[in-house]
Amino acid sequence: MSPRPRPRPSLSWDDGCVLAVDQRALPHEYRLLRLATVDQLIDAITSLAVRGAPTIGLAGALGVALSAHRHSSDGRTDEAFVKADAARLSAVRPTAVNLAWAVRRAVARLAEGPEAVLAEALAMLEEDMTVNRAAVVRAADLVQSLVPDRPVRILTHCNTGRLATAAIGTALGAIIELRERGRVAEVLVDETRPLLQGARLTAWELGEAGVPYRLCVDSAAAAAMARGMVDCVLAGADRIAANGDVANKIGTYGLAVAAARHGIPFVIVAPESSWDRELADGAGIVIEERDPGEVTGFAGVEAAPAGAAVFNPAFDVTPAELITAIVSEARVFRPCGSRRTSCPREVPT
Amino acid sequence: MSPRPRPRPSLSWDDGCVLAVDQRALPHEYRLLRLATVDQLIDAITSLAVRGAPTIGLAGALGVALSAHRHSSDGRTDEAFVKADAARLSAVRPTAVNLAWAVRRAVARLAEGPEAVLAEALAMLEEDMTVNRAAVVRAADLVQSLVPDRPVRILTHCNTGRLATAAIGTALGAIIELRERGRVAEVLVDETRPLLQGARLTAWELGEAGVPYRLCVDSAAAAAMARGMVDCVLAGADRIAANGDVANKIGTYGLAVAAARHGIPFVIVAPESSWDRELADGAGIVIEERDPGEVTGFAGVEAAPAGAAVFNPAFDVTPAELITAIVSEARVFRPCGSRRTSCPREVPT
Repeated sequence: MSPRPRPRPSLSWDDGCVLAVDQRALPHEYRLLRLATVDQLIDAITSLAVRGAPTIGLAGALGVALSAHRHSSDGRTDEAFVKADAARLSAVRPTAVNLAWAVRRAVARLAEGPEAVLAEALAMLEEDMTVNRAAVVRAADLVQSLVPDRPVRILTHCNTGRLATAAIGTALGAIIELRERGRVAEVLVDETRPLLQGARLTAWELGEAGVPYRLCVDSAAAAAMARGMVDCVLAGADRIAANGDVANKIGTYGLAVAAARHGIPFVIVAPESSWDRELADGAGIVIEERDPGEVTGFAGVEAAPAGAAVFNPAFDVTPAELITAIVSEARVFRPCGSRRTSCPREVPT
Repeated sequence: MSPRPRPRPSLSWDDGCVLAVDQRALPHEYRLLRLATVDQLIDAITSLAVRGAPTIGLAGALGVALSAHRHSSDGRTDEAFVKADAARLSAVRPTAVNLAWAVRRAVARLAEGPEAVLAEALAMLEEDMTVNRAAVVRAADLVQSLVPDRPVRILTHCNTGRLATAAIGTALGAIIELRERGRVAEVLVDETRPLLQGARLTAWELGEAGVPYRLCVDSAAAAAMARGMVDCVLAGADRIAANGDVANKIGTYGLAVAAARHGIPFVIVAPESSWDRELADGAGIVIEERDPGEVTGFAGVEAAPAGAAVFNPAFDVTPAELITAIVSEARVFRPCGSRRTSCPREVPT
């Protein structure tokens, strides 16, 4: 068997700049952004040109490398400047824990100079691929054990594919792994309003990988479950509290509630770096509220009356009790109290 | 106290034509369509220029009058032509029961000539206002009894206002009635993908009526409930089976599941004409699947990859067990087995 081709990464370092897939332009155009400054990188994250919890983290680490290169000369680095940039990077988006974690890791190498910071960021890119590879294999094994008798019909939300990570993906990576095993009947893709990451990015990635899918509006997911069209829900995570409560893209919670009603396994795939062990439970997770214009329109077309007030949380929190399993590179965590499992809390596999 | 001003109707008869509010143009423009033929009327219903279960029914009745006028001369009506038009009108949209019901009522007057058919259709317009007025008063009373201690925070889905009926509205009419009683704190409006009736129509009607509201994506509703932002959910119905199962706009079912989890009252407001007593339960309700382009795009902007396959049911079915009450002009029906009530099945008020 020939080795897998190396996946195209969502982020890379090129001649002193960060190259990033511009996720705003998909599915219509695949183009790369060349980000030469921390400000440009912050703009790219803010506008969701660069998005997905793992990708944001890696972009943050590369941003520290960018700053370290800009603020070094004659073998000396102006650490105060770089740390100020790092603090700004950490604060761009509050919910995903990966960002602060990755920035901290990069900053920890600062005393060794800009090349050490860059080496750390690049090592994290490599690690992310290795980690996700392990997680998607484990998650695919789990899904096969949960739905052993037939190719599985999976519902997924938002984008958790190679764009959302260095490469490989998390939940969507597991779907593609299952597809390679011949175990996917169909994927239902929530469009994922307001920014349509499902319609724009997940549909594009599934098409690229040759996985059969149908797109639906987010509110059709529960009806699809009621009609018996869904065997398993797979989603990612932006932050996981110590008890297994999961913050993820808005809409995840409603999916979990509907899946519970229908006895459908609800599986989260996320790297260990998405866990925030300092948080006892999801109540402490800061939920980012984003611009009203994301809801009142799309791509510049206004749908709502001018001046309409908006409630636009970017994430919600799914309590552990609704989650069948949280799969990482290291383990399958089955939240205690989950309706589908009994303790022990962790199942080594 | 001065009498209420007569509400602007969504439909009327003018010089041999049907005048209808073009609901596609809102909220940006309020304009009337002048529909001179049954074909034009069918196009208007198909394209959702004319929508909302009661409005569709009334448009169907007016369509029969239009046909009767076109196919009559010298005091004789070509009944076969009119009945063929009536059959086409009945079949334009399959889910709402009001359409077939209203067309049948108009056709029943055909032997008396075109003016009798028109008189029946106009009587149905008047009736619809009277019926909805009674239903919204009853629904507002119920909501006040369910949330007695404070102005209520209501979540609603799709558009159930004056545009969806002759005037007055159903669920949205009840919200406006509650507002006139000083009992509304805030309305959360689901945008209601794919066609954004919440963002375009309900937000516009609430703004027109001076009711404070915030718009949200459909998938944020469950998170709003989890945050304690919702006291009551109010929605309409397109068809109600004999046991109280309700077909309504896609997304209604997921809202009901989430409301049940949070112990939030879930109330349907719909006229008696929305009941289909020939159907034992919701399993027999035909669910219309609409064009993929509604999902792959947003207000004319293509978002998904070209050729993306789509699952686009226009409605879903909410089982009676998840519904606190179904309110009509005649009664408050509390489905037996509802978690919040015990029998008797009907509560006269």
